[in-house]
Parts: sequence; structure tokens; C-alpha cells
Amino acid sequence: MLEEGKIEQRNKTGRRTTCRIRKKHVRVGLAETLSTFVMMVFGLGSVAQVVTGGGVFGDFLSINLGFGLGVAMGVHAGGKVSGAHMNAAVTFTMCVLGRLSWKMLPLYVIAQLLGSFIAAGTIFALYYDSINHYCGGNLTVFGPKATAGIFATYPAPYLSIQTGFLDQVLGTAMLLLCLMSLADKRNQPAPTGGEPVAIGALVLLIGVSMGSNSGYAINPTRDLGPRIFTAIAGWGIDVFRAGNNWWWVPLVAPLVGGVTGALIYKAFVELFHPKDKKPKPSGPSEHIPLDECKKDNTDECVNC
Amino acid sequence: MLEEGKIEQRNKTGRRTTCRIRKKHVRVGLAETLSTFVMMVFGLGSVAQVVTGGGVFGDFLSINLGFGLGVAMGVHAGGKVSGAHMNAAVTFTMCVLGRLSWKMLPLYVIAQLLGSFIAAGTIFALYYDSINHYCGGNLTVFGPKATAGIFATYPAPYLSIQTGFLDQVLGTAMLLLCLMSLADKRNQPAPTGGEPVAIGALVLLIGVSMGSNSGYAINPTRDLGPRIFTAIAGWGIDVFRAGNNWWWVPLVAPLVGGVTGALIYKAFVELFHPKDKKPKPSGPSEHIPLDECKKDNTDECVNC
Amino acid sequence: MLEEGKIEQRNKTGRRTTCRIRKKHVRVGLAETLSTFVMMVFGLGSVAQVVTGGGVFGDFLSINLGFGLGVAMGVHAGGKVSGAHMNAAVTFTMCVLGRLSWKMLPLYVIAQLLGSFIAAGTIFALYYDSINHYCGGNLTVFGPKATAGIFATYPAPYLSIQTGFLDQVLGTAMLLLCLMSLADKRNQPAPTGGEPVAIGALVLLIGVSMGSNSGYAINPTRDLGPRIFTAIAGWGIDVFRAGNNWWWVPLVAPLVGGVTGALIYKAFVELFHPKDKKPKPSGPSEHIPLDECKKDNTDECVNC
Amino acid sequence: MLEEGKIEQRNKTGRRTTCRIRKKHVRVGLAETLSTFVMMVFGLGSVAQVVTGGGVFGDFLSINLGFGLGVAMGVHAGGKVSGAHMNAAVTFTMCVLGRLSWKMLPLYVIAQLLGSFIAAGTIFALYYDSINHYCGGNLTVFGPKATAGIFATYPAPYLSIQTGFLDQVLGTAMLLLCLMSLADKRNQPAPTGGEPVAIGALVLLIGVSMGSNSGYAINPTRDLGPRIFTAIAGWGIDVFRAGNNWWWVPLVAPLVGGVTGALIYKAFVELFHPKDKKPKPSGPSEHIPLDECKKDNTDECVNC
Repeated sequence: MLEEGKIEQRNKTGRRTTCRIRKKHVRVGLAETLSTFVMMVFGLGSVAQVVTGGGVFGDFLSINLGFGLGVAMGVHAGGKVSGAHMNAAVTFTMCVLGRLSWKMLPLYVIAQLLGSFIAAGTIFALYYDSINHYCGGNLTVFGPKATAGIFATYPAPYLSIQTGFLDQVLGTAMLLLCLMSLADKRNQPAPTGGEPVAIGALVLLIGVSMGSNSGYAINPTRDLGPRIFTAIAGWGIDVFRAGNNWWWVPLVAPLVGGVTGALIYKAFVELFHPKDKKPKPSGPSEHIPLDECKKDNTDECVNC
Repeated sequence: MLEEGKIEQRNKTGRRTTCRIRKKHVRVGLAETLSTFVMMVFGLGSVAQVVTGGGVFGDFLSINLGFGLGVAMGVHAGGKVSGAHMNAAVTFTMCVLGRLSWKMLPLYVIAQLLGSFIAAGTIFALYYDSINHYCGGNLTVFGPKATAGIFATYPAPYLSIQTGFLDQVLGTAMLLLCLMSLADKRNQPAPTGGEPVAIGALVLLIGVSMGSNSGYAINPTRDLGPRIFTAIAGWGIDVFRAGNNWWWVPLVAPLVGGVTGALIYKAFVELFHPKDKKPKPSGPSEHIPLDECKKDNTDECVNC
Repeated sequence: MLEEGKIEQRNKTGRRTTCRIRKKHVRVGLAETLSTFVMMVFGLGSVAQVVTGGGVFGDFLSINLGFGLGVAMGVHAGGKVSGAHMNAAVTFTMCVLGRLSWKMLPLYVIAQLLGSFIAAGTIFALYYDSINHYCGGNLTVFGPKATAGIFATYPAPYLSIQTGFLDQVLGTAMLLLCLMSLADKRNQPAPTGGEPVAIGALVLLIGVSMGSNSGYAINPTRDLGPRIFTAIAGWGIDVFRAGNNWWWVPLVAPLVGGVTGALIYKAFVELFHPKDKKPKPSGPSEHIPLDECKKDNTDECVNC
Repeated sequence: MLEEGKIEQRNKTGRRTTCRIRKKHVRVGLAETLSTFVMMVFGLGSVAQVVTGGGVFGDFLSINLGFGLGVAMGVHAGGKVSGAHMNAAVTFTMCVLGRLSWKMLPLYVIAQLLGSFIAAGTIFALYYDSINHYCGGNLTVFGPKATAGIFATYPAPYLSIQTGFLDQVLGTAMLLLCLMSLADKRNQPAPTGGEPVAIGALVLLIGVSMGSNSGYAINPTRDLGPRIFTAIAGWGIDVFRAGNNWWWVPLVAPLVGGVTGALIYKAFVELFHPKDKKPKPSGPSEHIPLDECKKDNTDECVNC
């Protein structure tokens, strides 16, 4: 783990190290932004196509495929650089588990918000004609021709806040529980190289089985970025009021759910692994090269 | 295989060994419970979504995907610990084939029942608002707004008990026949690391081709746990009466079918493998570390 | 390749060799029968489910999945023993290319016919109630409640025999062309262990793109076995008369198409492979251990 | 990279080298033609089946599957020989990035046009009866029974040229961005041997999320070849006039988009890779054996 104090102690001048750390932040931030952008362009695009397509250009399964494969491509886009969390609940859980420094959390969250905000703008431009044709130029959050649901998630009319909160807790718990098992080298992990597809299949599966209550955000940054975009782009403040002020649920509940799911996996499986097997670090964080700077790796600082 | 007597003979004190065996039972039991829970949350969730979604949130194929990928994630969740049978017909067949000690059967069955019972409760909570909205608060087993079929399986109205019994025998026979071939290292097995997806695809395939008669339970524990839950949760004793007392068919027929399918594979392929090839143990049981305790593996008993 | 004369010359007594050959015939025949049975139970089952399910239990895509994944499971069931051709057009093409002895052709064809005939009977029993409920007990080849199409293939009403013949030639040509490339180790073959899924995806793809004209038999034995079954089981001689005596087209055209497709791949790609790369045998036939008997492999004959 | 001058300088006679180069051109051209043909037969076939099938033989998702898996099979058909670009935007981007000699561009483009033109003819023959039955023999570009969209792409009625241009730029940008990441060995690339399926999944994903505006050509040669075919085969000059002279958009915009997408990946990820890791050549071009001729490889020229 990155321990700033220790490093500075060792490198009295500190310049080179600081520079390297900054460079790594740029690397990780850009990769995380790109990963999230890729996931969201594909995901939001699939919703836009279904909503405005009048039943001809796909159905709920294409949305599941759009987000599922979109996640897979997002992991390909930046997986070995930033870990491609693309989800603040994943980042938060990694921090709680001690697999990522808390100091990295803001960087990840900002990168994810940026990526999903830009993706929302991109999809708005791409489907501008289509959305206007569908809703007659009337960008609404409610009603039969509502289009705000293309970008952020909204609860079904029958859903109470309590069940909605549970919905987001449970969905994210299943996400992290399964991510932990996909990465657990002492159990039955995803095959080497097949991690992106396995994670994508997991997200598709959550959409297929837990998608109808509130659109399976299970991701605070995926939801907030596009919601802010729609508030600005013409849907107005209703995007925050809708669903009995639903907007805070996909921000808070996934944090609770993510940690819960990861702990359940630990309690049921990881704790019981035989101790003589060498425990390897598991979870998406293993790709994140954020440990202490290595002196021999000086080339990286040239551009600073 | 675990031979209790032999072990006790060797370890006069027996303490350490007993302890290690107990620990293994806990490990295996928890992993099997978690695996079954994961499979069932995704599987039942997909049915709930389709039934209450009014045709907008998926169709029969999403249920096939829900159970197929749910099985795959269940195998990831506990595959190398308990073997992730998640199905008493699989466990029973492994015992008949001598690949698992009969003494382990009750542990597996209890773990599977527990996992699927808790999953039923979880899905009931998650879709509580949705189910009530769909059926007007009237939890019924029969009629156009019946919702019991979200949790346990029921036969189509036209289905005779005989054909229904055959349906469950054949479905489970195909399951075990193909599981045997997926695990047969001397034939064309599933690729290393790809076993969970292969098994998931197999379950999806059974749903696509043998699902309309009675909902392809092909699994006693998957069916009984949720059925008991619904009997308690408000659907009442009708869940056992429905379909001409259908409930016992998915309990008995899969046991017959599982063994039949496995024997057919043995008779058509396994028996004819050249004898000079070293026969490796095949089948899901190979992951189950239930053989005789090894003395050098003492770390495991520390917590006893 | 198996050269009977040479073998007998070497083994004056000939007994042991004859015995070993017979044993191999049994092995290959049983594996091929089982593979074809597995493919056909899943394939025909998916059609039966869609036809009798009234739009609720799947659509054309589930049939594509049923045959696609069914082929994959068929390859798993016997792939390393018989090669799991499951299709006389594949076997015929392998013979034409010199990758399989012509003497093996009848064995393969009989095994494939047997497997698909038994599968047709199995699916008839499994869907007996369902079919009767759907068509009111009237097993017909024509009309809105026709059910013969569950088992064998029939052309669309608008299809001329010429276009239908082309349809079967082209479908089988694409099948063999792609099978050749999936097996060509000097090009971009299917990943090791992933052959069954790749072949299944290919069959799914043919169904998705060439299925509407006449149900993509692309396989003489897959079509004839179930057609004979239906003729006996109650649909009568109409199954041969329907579609302007369509029955012979899926028998003859795939043989033409298979060889054509394989030769096209050879002409466009295989012939141009650099000669200094060691040519490895490619194609499904590489799994078939039918070459000359090896003396050191005597254990195999023990049971004769 | 192929530097003609350098080679001729070294080989005064030049004969053998010229011969070898010519041979390589034939190899690459034929493989690229076959790959494109395979992709297009499956892709166009899936559209024809959906358009003429009246909702019974698939929907938009089957078209996505047809092109997605069709691309995968196309990569299998010629991937290690020509790289299986099957898309002039890919070839153009490879040239811009310096991964393919500009001298090869015309060969690739001609091969791709040829492959897609022949595929259009093949699908026209295969669905000749079906198309005529569907449209009553009236081959039109406009109207409810229009069939020109089976072969080339046309914009939705509401789509402005500007948004349409953006649509093709963005779709191709996402294609190349993700192709770059799938091939980047220093990031999270497609698993070895799984490249064809990963690329196919990417194309499926683009269809699922960006397909409704104008049919996701994202490929100049895929669009032009079949458009020319339809102009000749009976649809007439309307195929160029339709959609406000839409035809030039899928020719120009993908070139812009392809380069943009590749540069975005470079700017966000590739530029920041640690310099001490050996940079391996990435991208589809790595399969293309077009570098300087090797003297020891003389066998190849025998046939010249």
C-alpha cells in the first residue's frame, strides 16, 4: 500500500518520488476515465436505442447485453492500469478491505464521474435526433414519453424507498460477492484473460435477475454523472425530485451493499481457506500498481 | 474417500483428525450453502422479474440466462471448496459412483436446502412490492395472477404425472451425462478454468429445450427449499397440492435421472477408454478435498 | 490412415489386430451415437418447446441456441473418441479430403442415424402430452397446427427446389469452410479446449443467418433419422411427400456443399500457407484414432 | 515494414524478392477476400432473414448476432494471414498508425469490396424466393416493403446528415478504441486464441448500442460493395440517392472515426505505459507477415 510518509522519509529530496506518484495518478485517472466512458457509452447507448426504438431495435435483454458487454470492454480498456473499477462502490469496498489506499478514492470517484458525464453527453449528441423524434422535443422525467431514464435510473412506481434501498444493497452485494469469488485464486476464479468477460456476464446476470425494480444502478458514479448531465441538458431539477427524491439511494445503498457482499464472501469462503496455501492478493485491486515506488523504474519520470 | 474407521485406527488419540474433519465439514457446508444461495438468488430473481414485469423486463430466455449464468456464478462462489453441486441429484449420483462418501450426503443436502430457502426469502423481500403490485396482494398458486411459480416449479396443466416424471428423469439424465463428459479428461472436457461457464451453458440449454413441461427443476433441493418457504410465507399448503401433488416428482425423479445419465455416459464412452491411459478422477467431485486427512496439513486445525 | 492389407501382412495371424479394429469400431460407433443423440435431444427439444409453447417458451433464437449449444455438448460427449461429426456431410467431406478411411463412412452414418432416431423418439415421449394438447391429437405435416417440423425440416411454401437445393449447399459449405478454418493450426484456429463452443457458435450463426428458407438441416443424418421416426410414429408417408418431395434435398445437397466449402477454404487459404511451416493435420478428424494399430497398445484387446 | 527500395538495393537481381512479394499479395488478398465474404454472408443473411421473416425468424438481436459472430468467423477464416481487417476503416487506421504499409491499402480495399460484393450476390441468390415473396417482386429502396436495407445501410427518416455523420464517426471510433485495447499486450488484452470472439462481441455490442440511427455500417467496404450490387441487381440508382445521398457517409465518416478512436486510446492509455516494459507491437496488424522478405524462407517462391 502507498504510505506517503514512509516514502518521503526514505527519499529526503522527495522530488523524483513525488513526480512518479503524480505520473501514476495521471495514468490511473485517465485509464479509469476511459474505462468508465467506454462502459457508459455502450450501456447508455443500448438504453437509448431501446427507449426510442419503438420495440424494433432491441428489448430489455439488449440493455442487459449493452451494460454487460460494455463493462467487459471497459475492463479491457483500462483493466491493467487502474483496475477498471468504473464504480465507486467497488472502489470504496477495495478501500475498506485495505486493497486500495483511501487517498486514491477521490481520484477514482472523480475519474468515474467524469467518464460517465462525458458518456452521457456523447449519447445525448448521438441520439439527439432520435430522442427529439421520440418525445417531440419535450425532455421529460415523467409520463409515457419520458426519456430521463435513458441516462440515470428511476424506481418503478410501486417501489417503496425501503425496498428500493434493499434492491440497491442486494444488487451491489451480489456484484461484490461474485467479484471476490471471480478473483479468488484459491477457489474457482475466472480463467486467466477471461476476467473481463466474466465480470461482464456477472453484470448482465444482475440485470436479468434484479433489473426491474429500479434499473440496477448498483453504482453511485454511473448514476450521478448522467443525472447531473440531464439536469443541465434540459430535463431540469426533476431528475433529482423524481421517485420521491430517489437520486440518493443509488449513491448510498451500493456502498453498504458492496462492503456487505465482500464480507459475506470472506465469512463463508475466504476465512476457511487452508492456511498453508500461500494467500495471493485477490480482487480487481491486484492490477493496480500503486504500491511503493521502485527506484529502478526511473524512466517513468522523464516527462515530469 | 473418507474412511472414518481407518483414520481412527491410525490416529489413536483421534482428536486432531476429528477436529480437522469437523473443520472441513464447516468449510464444505458453508461453501455449498453460499453457492446454492448465489445460484438461486439469480435464478429466482430472473423468474420474479419476468412474471411481475408484464413482458417488458425479459421473457423465458432471460429465465434460462438467469439460471444458466446463476449456476456459473454459483460454481465460482464455492467450486474448489465443496464442488458446488447445488443439487441433491448431483450429490446423490456422486455418492452412487463412489466419488463422494455417503456420509457427506446429508451435509450437502442440508446446505443446499438452506441456501435455496434463504435465497427464496431474499427474493421475496426484493420483489415484495413488485409481487404485491402484480397480484394485488393475493398470493396464489393457481389462476392468471399466480406467483407461486416464481419460487418452486409446477407442471403445465396438460402434463400427466407419468410424462412429468419422465420429464424430470430425462432432464437430470442429460445434466449428469453432460457433466460427466465435461469433466472427462480423457475425452473432450471443458477447458481449464472454463468449467463454470460450460456448466452454466448446459443448464441454459436444458432450459431452452426441456423447460416448458414443468419448469426444469432437475434438482430436488432447488425445488423443495423455496416450496417450503412459500408454504410458510403466505401461499399456504396449496404449493404441495398443486399439479396433482406434483411436489414429490422433482424430489424423486432427478435422483433416478441423475444416476441413469451418468451410467449412460459410462456405458457409451468411459468404459471404452484405452486402459493404458492413466485414468484421472473425473466429475465435479474432484474438487472436493474430502479424502483422508494428511498429517502435514496441520495448520488447518489451529482454530478448533 | 487404416490400410488393412499392410496390417495383415505384418501380423500373419491377424487375430489380435482384427480384434483391436473391431473394438475401435465399437468405441467410435457408440461415441458417435451418443454425441448425435445429445445434440438431437437438445435441438429437437428446443423446436418442440417453441412450436407447442405458444410463443411463451422461446422463439427462433432459442431454437438456434438449442442446436448451437446442443452441438457443443455433443462434441463434449464424444469429441476425442469419434470426432463427434454428428453429420454425414462432415464425415463424407473428411473421407473426400483423405482424413478418414472410406471404410469408416457406413459406421458413422449408421451411428448418426441411430442417435438421431432415438433422440426423435425420446423427444416424442417427452413432449407427447404437449404435442397432443397443441394439435388436439392430430399429428399433421401440413396446416396451422402441423407438428412434423419439430422433427425433420420442411421448406417454406415459397421456396423452389432449386433455391432450396442452393440453400442446403450454401449452408453446409459455410459449415465446412468455417470448420476447416477453426481447425487450421497455421491460421487462427479455435482456442485449445474451446473447440466445442466455437463449433456450436458456428451452428447458431448458420441458424441465425440461413434458417428461414428450410430450417437449416445442413446434415443428412440429422434430417433422415427423425423423418423416418415421424413416418412410423403417426405422421405417415406425408413426411416424405411434403414440400414437393423435399426429403431428398437435405440428404444430397449437404454432401455437395460440404466438399465445396472445404475446397474453397483450401483454395483461398490452406494452399498458400508457407511450405516451411510443418503442416499439422487439421480438421475434426485429427481426434479420430483410426490409424494403423500400434503394437505397444495391446491392453485394448483384452476384452475381445 | 515493407520498404521496397531497401529490398531492391539488397537483391540486385530482385527477381526472387519481387516474386515473393507478389505471392504474399495473392495470399493476403485471397484471405482478406474470404474473411470479408464469410463475415458478410452471415451478416447480410441475418438481415435478410429478419426482414423477410415477418417477425418469426429473429429480430434486431439476431442481426447483431449475425454480424457479431460473422466477424468472429471471418477472423478465424483469414486472421493469421491477412489480419482479417474486413473493414477499410481498420486498414486505413493501421496505415495511419504505421502498422501497415500504405502500399497495401489498395489491395485490402479491393479484396474487401470483392468479398462483400460476392457475398451480396450470394445472399441475393439464397433469399431470391424469399425476397420476391416478401415484396411481391418489387425491389424498392423506400416504402413499407423496402428490401434494399438487407444489403447496404440507410439512415432513419429522422436522422440529419450531421448526426448521421457523428453516428458513423462515433461507432467506428469505439470500434478502433476497443480493438486497440483488445490487442494491447501491456494492458488487459483479449485472451490468446479468444481474439475472434472478443472482436465479434465488440461488433455485437456496437449493434446493440449504436445500431438504430443508421444500421451501424462503421465500415466503408462493407457498405459500398453490397450497395453497388443492389444498384446493378434491380434496386437501381435510388440506393445512392436514398437518405439525402446517404451513401458517402459510411465511406468517409468511419475513416475519421477509426483514426480518432485509435488516437484516443493512445492518448489515454498507451502513452502512459511504463517505458521499461518492452513495447510489443499491438493491434490486428501483428498477424500480417508483410515485413521484409527473409532469405531463408525460399520455399515460398517455388510456384512463381
